[in-house]
Amino acid sequence: MNTELKQILEEVKDGSMPIDEALLKIKMQPFEDIGFAKVDLHRKLRQGTAEVIYGAGKTAEQINGIIATMQKNDQPNILITRLPKATYDALDQKDSIKYYDTARVGIVGSFPKPDGLGKIIVATGGTSDIPVAEEAALTAEMMGNEVTRLYDVGVAGLHRVLSHLDEIMGASVIIAIAGMEGALASVIGGLADCPVIAVPTSVGYGASFGGVSALLSMLNSCASGVSVVNIDNGFGAGFLASRINHMEAK
Amino acid sequence: MNTELKQILEEVKDGSMPIDEALLKIKMQPFEDIGFAKVDLHRKLRQGTAEVIYGAGKTAEQINGIIATMQKNDQPNILITRLPKATYDALDQKDSIKYYDTARVGIVGSFPKPDGLGKIIVATGGTSDIPVAEEAALTAEMMGNEVTRLYDVGVAGLHRVLSHLDEIMGASVIIAIAGMEGALASVIGGLADCPVIAVPTSVGYGASFGGVSALLSMLNSCASGVSVVNIDNGFGAGFLASRINHMEAK
Amino acid sequence: MNTELKQILEEVKDGSMPIDEALLKIKMQPFEDIGFAKVDLHRKLRQGTAEVIYGAGKTAEQINGIIATMQKNDQPNILITRLPKATYDALDQKDSIKYYDTARVGIVGSFPKPDGLGKIIVATGGTSDIPVAEEAALTAEMMGNEVTRLYDVGVAGLHRVLSHLDEIMGASVIIAIAGMEGALASVIGGLADCPVIAVPTSVGYGASFGGVSALLSMLNSCASGVSVVNIDNGFGAGFLASRINHMEAK
Amino acid sequence: MNTELKQILEEVKDGSMPIDEALLKIKMQPFEDIGFAKVDLHRKLRQGTAEVIYGAGKTAEQINGIIATMQKNDQPNILITRLPKATYDALDQKDSIKYYDTARVGIVGSFPKPDGLGKIIVATGGTSDIPVAEEAALTAEMMGNEVTRLYDVGVAGLHRVLSHLDEIMGASVIIAIAGMEGALASVIGGLADCPVIAVPTSVGYGASFGGVSALLSMLNSCASGVSVVNIDNGFGAGFLASRINHMEAK
Amino acid sequence: MNTELKQILEEVKDGSMPIDEALLKIKMQPFEDIGFAKVDLHRKLRQGTAEVIYGAGKTAEQINGIIATMQKNDQPNILITRLPKATYDALDQKDSIKYYDTARVGIVGSFPKPDGLGKIIVATGGTSDIPVAEEAALTAEMMGNEVTRLYDVGVAGLHRVLSHLDEIMGASVIIAIAGMEGALASVIGGLADCPVIAVPTSVGYGASFGGVSALLSMLNSCASGVSVVNIDNGFGAGFLASRINHMEAK
Amino acid sequence: MNTELKQILEEVKDGSMPIDEALLKIKMQPFEDIGFAKVDLHRKLRQGTAEVIYGAGKTAEQINGIIATMQKNDQPNILITRLPKATYDALDQKDSIKYYDTARVGIVGSFPKPDGLGKIIVATGGTSDIPVAEEAALTAEMMGNEVTRLYDVGVAGLHRVLSHLDEIMGASVIIAIAGMEGALASVIGGLADCPVIAVPTSVGYGASFGGVSALLSMLNSCASGVSVVNIDNGFGAGFLASRINHMEAK
Amino acid sequence: MNTELKQILEEVKDGSMPIDEALLKIKMQPFEDIGFAKVDLHRKLRQGTAEVIYGAGKTAEQINGIIATMQKNDQPNILITRLPKATYDALDQKDSIKYYDTARVGIVGSFPKPDGLGKIIVATGGTSDIPVAEEAALTAEMMGNEVTRLYDVGVAGLHRVLSHLDEIMGASVIIAIAGMEGALASVIGGLADCPVIAVPTSVGYGASFGGVSALLSMLNSCASGVSVVNIDNGFGAGFLASRINHMEAK
Amino acid sequence: MNTELKQILEEVKDGSMPIDEALLKIKMQPFEDIGFAKVDLHRKLRQGTAEVIYGAGKTAEQINGIIATMQKNDQPNILITRLPKATYDALDQKDSIKYYDTARVGIVGSFPKPDGLGKIIVATGGTSDIPVAEEAALTAEMMGNEVTRLYDVGVAGLHRVLSHLDEIMGASVIIAIAGMEGALASVIGGLADCPVIAVPTSVGYGASFGGVSALLSMLNSCASGVSVVNIDNGFGAGFLASRINHMEAK
Repeated sequence: MNTELKQILEEVKDGSMPIDEALLKIKMQPFEDIGFAKVDLHRKLRQGTAEVIYGAGKTAEQINGIIATMQKNDQPNILITRLPKATYDALDQKDSIKYYDTARVGIVGSFPKPDGLGKIIVATGGTSDIPVAEEAALTAEMMGNEVTRLYDVGVAGLHRVLSHLDEIMGASVIIAIAGMEGALASVIGGLADCPVIAVPTSVGYGASFGGVSALLSMLNSCASGVSVVNIDNGFGAGFLASRINHMEAK
Repeated sequence: MNTELKQILEEVKDGSMPIDEALLKIKMQPFEDIGFAKVDLHRKLRQGTAEVIYGAGKTAEQINGIIATMQKNDQPNILITRLPKATYDALDQKDSIKYYDTARVGIVGSFPKPDGLGKIIVATGGTSDIPVAEEAALTAEMMGNEVTRLYDVGVAGLHRVLSHLDEIMGASVIIAIAGMEGALASVIGGLADCPVIAVPTSVGYGASFGGVSALLSMLNSCASGVSVVNIDNGFGAGFLASRINHMEAK
Repeated sequence: MNTELKQILEEVKDGSMPIDEALLKIKMQPFEDIGFAKVDLHRKLRQGTAEVIYGAGKTAEQINGIIATMQKNDQPNILITRLPKATYDALDQKDSIKYYDTARVGIVGSFPKPDGLGKIIVATGGTSDIPVAEEAALTAEMMGNEVTRLYDVGVAGLHRVLSHLDEIMGASVIIAIAGMEGALASVIGGLADCPVIAVPTSVGYGASFGGVSALLSMLNSCASGVSVVNIDNGFGAGFLASRINHMEAK
Repeated sequence: MNTELKQILEEVKDGSMPIDEALLKIKMQPFEDIGFAKVDLHRKLRQGTAEVIYGAGKTAEQINGIIATMQKNDQPNILITRLPKATYDALDQKDSIKYYDTARVGIVGSFPKPDGLGKIIVATGGTSDIPVAEEAALTAEMMGNEVTRLYDVGVAGLHRVLSHLDEIMGASVIIAIAGMEGALASVIGGLADCPVIAVPTSVGYGASFGGVSALLSMLNSCASGVSVVNIDNGFGAGFLASRINHMEAK
Repeated sequence: MNTELKQILEEVKDGSMPIDEALLKIKMQPFEDIGFAKVDLHRKLRQGTAEVIYGAGKTAEQINGIIATMQKNDQPNILITRLPKATYDALDQKDSIKYYDTARVGIVGSFPKPDGLGKIIVATGGTSDIPVAEEAALTAEMMGNEVTRLYDVGVAGLHRVLSHLDEIMGASVIIAIAGMEGALASVIGGLADCPVIAVPTSVGYGASFGGVSALLSMLNSCASGVSVVNIDNGFGAGFLASRINHMEAK
Repeated sequence: MNTELKQILEEVKDGSMPIDEALLKIKMQPFEDIGFAKVDLHRKLRQGTAEVIYGAGKTAEQINGIIATMQKNDQPNILITRLPKATYDALDQKDSIKYYDTARVGIVGSFPKPDGLGKIIVATGGTSDIPVAEEAALTAEMMGNEVTRLYDVGVAGLHRVLSHLDEIMGASVIIAIAGMEGALASVIGGLADCPVIAVPTSVGYGASFGGVSALLSMLNSCASGVSVVNIDNGFGAGFLASRINHMEAK
Repeated sequence: MNTELKQILEEVKDGSMPIDEALLKIKMQPFEDIGFAKVDLHRKLRQGTAEVIYGAGKTAEQINGIIATMQKNDQPNILITRLPKATYDALDQKDSIKYYDTARVGIVGSFPKPDGLGKIIVATGGTSDIPVAEEAALTAEMMGNEVTRLYDVGVAGLHRVLSHLDEIMGASVIIAIAGMEGALASVIGGLADCPVIAVPTSVGYGASFGGVSALLSMLNSCASGVSVVNIDNGFGAGFLASRINHMEAK
Repeated sequence: MNTELKQILEEVKDGSMPIDEALLKIKMQPFEDIGFAKVDLHRKLRQGTAEVIYGAGKTAEQINGIIATMQKNDQPNILITRLPKATYDALDQKDSIKYYDTARVGIVGSFPKPDGLGKIIVATGGTSDIPVAEEAALTAEMMGNEVTRLYDVGVAGLHRVLSHLDEIMGASVIIAIAGMEGALASVIGGLADCPVIAVPTSVGYGASFGGVSALLSMLNSCASGVSVVNIDNGFGAGFLASRINHMEAK
């Protein structure tokens, strides 16, 4: 942004850009207003990733509009998260959009070739955590990562997670997803030597309080190298894992 | 109690006990009032254990009185929990009472010979949990159990707990004590085939909220056979473990 | 497991097992992957009980698959908890599975002959706690225990619980189930001389907060020998009660 | 107040009181401003009780001032609650004020002769609840009630409370004071046929959360006729009990 | 109960009652088991009120059974609270049971003639609190009290409550019902000189948290003479108000 | 009110008003009782605004009645908030009432001409906050304010809010509406030099806890000049903004 | 800021300012770094008020430095909040700084002449709320407002607040400060027709939870025109009140 | 570990290692027991970092012992966190250990040469967050990272953080530390294109609840690429940032 600002100042200096236009450019340029939401067309450059649409609470019409604007601006690959089946069914481009039921994710375009530093493991404590895990895995894949899924490896059956020690030791980033007591993050965090992103899920009953128990457990993990995202936030975990898996010298 | 009631009724019937005395006996007999607290002298019979004094908030004078009453009633072995060092120093029988600093426990009399079904393991996640663990261990020992201490075997270093797999598989009852994320209970619960009593501790900082994080984690344990007592309640865990370790056919 | 490890090492030593196979055996043997969940076929040996299927969130197809795998591995008796009626109706073996409406439990096979140390009492504070109580009772029965049901003996009518003093004094383990103020656990804990497992229920309104009030009440019980499982966790209480009721010298 | 208003209006009508004075009288009369607090001199008439000073956070000088003002207005009997010993020691009239250490209560003047409908019972679950109980008992006594103290009758030893069944059945009002699980209120509420005022105390540790556990337990009491005041609010309970014990036909 | 016990003892003494029958009588007599719930037939004597059925969670069949048992035992007047319309419609005696829609209350038999010390005021902060208020009012009326309803007198329009100052000053007991900020209890508590029972309601949105805001507000009321029952507990407030309104010398 | 009171007193003095009528007038005059709710007809004078009907929980009949009473008392412009579509459809004057779907607001009469000090900005963090924002905006417009809407300017895309710096710097009052982390209020509070009213919304998932996260964030705002209203309380924010925007010398 | 930006762009255009200087100016100008904190010297212009130092957690040396920098930049009048007495005693300019003990506020320079639209009322529920009230009052006075203090007018004695009806009706802005149940805000909000800023205080005990009860009560106020600032945030309330009291046409 | 296991199996196979020694080696080798804590000497290899001592709750003697053991095992560089000044003063090697007061960190040995991918920024919202920030910065430096400190750049003065846009855009990892409303993480998360680790601090008052407000705010951040560690966990953030800054192809 600083370079852009300098560029604008230089054009102002040599008279090739009027002052008012400069004022306008600095403030108005980075996005295009399509009425109900400001589509951020410059985000790809700024954030190193394709655009994402958060589908929850949006109508099919709104999503149609955002997709069209993105495609007009040369962003063919789009990830739509929290997309209810019913909304998906009402989309204009439904036939060319692949829908993943479990993850409630829609994919416009295609998956890019993986180009990260290594593999991302997506691990879950139980089978009920899989919807969140699939959101994370598809997000990571859509952003150019190879993903290994290790589902139902909860700590109550420790041999399950130990039987995958090789994969865990060799991972680039691990996403540990669990509800209930959320101990998976600590156990994996103690075994792995890579960054671990913990995702508490709202799975559970009684004193799990919609994910609070797992969240607190993960925040208090005694294992180093573990950080936490919001309850059920598979997308956030996948996005961050991809960013870490694409680290390079600056 | 039923037998006692029958006995009383029979004495009423044969006229050896007046009605008013019967009324009184039923209601007044089971304890002796010493002013500030009702010492429960019949509890040993009813609960299968020696008397315990909860020291917190009691003055040295009050504890002196309770000890004396118990000794007068043939209860030589007494466990005093939550006993501040300063209170201990002010006790009449200080010289013959052994004080355990870490556990803040005082022992009147001596440890009985272990007569339980097997060994009780007291395990902790970290070194800071040891005060609670010692309260549990001394309680169990004072009630006739052999105790094995496994301290600092938290799940962030899984090999630590795994190196004690033999002991864990062979235990009669396990007390799993941990603060922070409290995952120890789930991991041990998944490895062991005996009852596991989980004790959350108030050790930790930030979002551990004085033991709430560990408490929720333990309540939500996916491992079967795990139950939970109050935060920092080492005594309660030791007492219950002893009761389980002395189970017999009824 | 230690014996198995030694056995494998000995076969490695005498050349009867190649190293790679040994590596594999140690890690892969204890369970069989059927795609959506890792059925733990060795658990019966390790945990001393028949297999349990947690029905919540599983499709009929998934449950069919798990049942079939278990039966193929000689586990004829299966307890299915949290099984919605609709899921039950869609099961392949529906006709040979007995369904308990109140408890939402399905039983494959038959109840074993009781072989515990004594009787397990399942007591509730009110009639609304019965679904949780039935889950606990059926679990205990399915694991070889004789169960006595004492329902609606809440402490607001103290004579109700007192009229069962004989049974309470003679029990091997007691499961005390209550919502609202959860005082039943303390009262029974004070009367009984056996382990008491308290189960808070989400029954109630207002400041009962879905079971939190009863949970806190039970955790803070002044009676010794009481421990607590998760809100509404009838299965966990029944399982632990059975484990305690089958204690033997080790 | 309505009568007073009518009186004023009549004096306005017959010209014996100027309008401005009427305006003033209506608004300014009921209290006298002594700078730091508005002493409510008319409260005795309105509330049927002597004045009370809440001592917490007040300096000795402030309390001296309030006492003096009250005495000047013919209120010889004053109850000072939450009075720290150090503040008491600095009071002008220290020598004629009786100080109750446990309850942190100071009494100016003397106890009135009891004139209530019956006896008020103040019961506690444990010995640590006694400070709150004494605040309640002294408050009730200072307001003209006969008080019976039943301390340390917690529900974990049910025979303790049962041995006082006669007193409980014969009470006019009962104040049930308990920390930890607070079950005393429910048990007494189930036995008694008079109003029961429950007072949770902040006594306890771990998941008692400074009285929250007892508070929730008491609010959720299944026994009818139980209501609750704030944590540790012995004064409030004593005041309300007195009001109920002085009910008369209206 | 004491008198009964003495009577039994005397019959035992003079041989007119065998010991086993005495044992049985003491423990089994006070209620009759009808399978799904223990109907407490002696409660009227003990608690000074007609029987109440808590309708929530009960089937029409269960309620039919309880009504029949009560009627067989000469309890013609029954109050059924929390009775869903659908359950009411399925009751056997539907035609002779009066149903109050707003309060979800069913009345078997008729209202008794008021015989209390004075009037009970039931006041609400808003119109949405009326269902809880009607439950309280009908309960009080069913137990022999004259009730004055003051609805929608919330403190944001102070003149509303002030316009009823006469009634408030003349009441025997006041039930103050409010959601949201629950300030009504404090304002009425400051105006009245009778016991005030505060009922928080779950009415509200946002940070009212289902009644918690009103509950805390009421517990912290600076006005003396105020106590609190559970959120939405109109029945409890009506029952307690009636008990206070029927106080007599003991 | 004081002037009115003086007026009444003067009429009493000169005999033109009987005392009883004066008494009545003072207490009964300010509102008219229409059975289910006390319509406050004098509020416009007192509060400087047209009447508002809180539609939630009211039947169409009740709203019809309130509208009619208001109109009879010369209040043609009425704002109905929290009005469900179904209730709207059942209103008598449906055809002349404009309904705003997103805001669930009904408008009787017409919008007044803006007469405030300046413009009110209504800003939201995301598109999901718009329903609350529209309730705020319509309320402000209905009370005589010009409103500028800035939607979807959340802080994760800081350039969005910065591109409106001119409007923000020039506003009279700003309403900042956000769910999730609620940071919008702090950022705008730091940029603006006018009062900022923060409205947390219940939009979000996981640890947003129905608006609690945003609420806490806004209460803790480090920016001066920010205050907070209840979660989702668009009406309250619009009303207060209007009041501030109509400030004048007193 | 926009004007400044335009000015800079124009100087860039006509060559009077080099591009790099322009870049620097835009970013570096608004504050001067003095090592431990960035003193915001332009804030007066931007925020319409003198500078404020938040004293909590700052050393005397740090405060000395900030005062000196401000004075060097022509800001003679400074308000220091949350200033511990000990820190004040160690300040360089101690002799010329007036310290207000109750409010823990230090004033450098002098109070400006009031120039607001009207008077600001600072009202408290009790005497213990006065420290927070004084912080609010001094803040408002330091920012050019006339302040009326109405202390100890809590709603439990309604006549107290009613006796000040004139002042309340005539205020420009009201700050309502209360702990415990926080009802003062609702009562004043219902009486006044000006903006009301509610400040919950941490005064109280038991279920007041350090101000949470009052906070929730105020957020849920049914009175329109009320907004809330953080617990004990007297400064924030005084600052906002001043801003509202200085509103002018834009 | 897998390679080690294979190595051991091969030595078993060729007879160079007895079976019992193999068993022992697998389980006992990874750490050396020094009585009060199990020092994990192999952790450097496994976790890619020097050893860390968590100083809180440890005596000087315990820390001396751990340091000595580490040094004996060739780990010269040690980071001691949460080290109270008093404990530091009592350490044997005090003179050769550098103590950082603000961060309460002790450094044994020296800082390694930075060898990460880029710079780590440690940013704080206010000056009170600096202790946590210094813990994070020293941790990162001790693990071979270059650190840029940006302190007191909170969002209420947005220009502060914007003036460092260059550094933010060029960072490799950013640690965003803030108390109160915690909005810094969202603002930085929206500006940066690198992983952002958010650290809530317990700094604040009132409704900041010891860091809970900031924690929730950060968990709910709308900015992608943000994850959260425990309240005040500067070490955890520094450790994780270092791990991410040392990512390499696997």
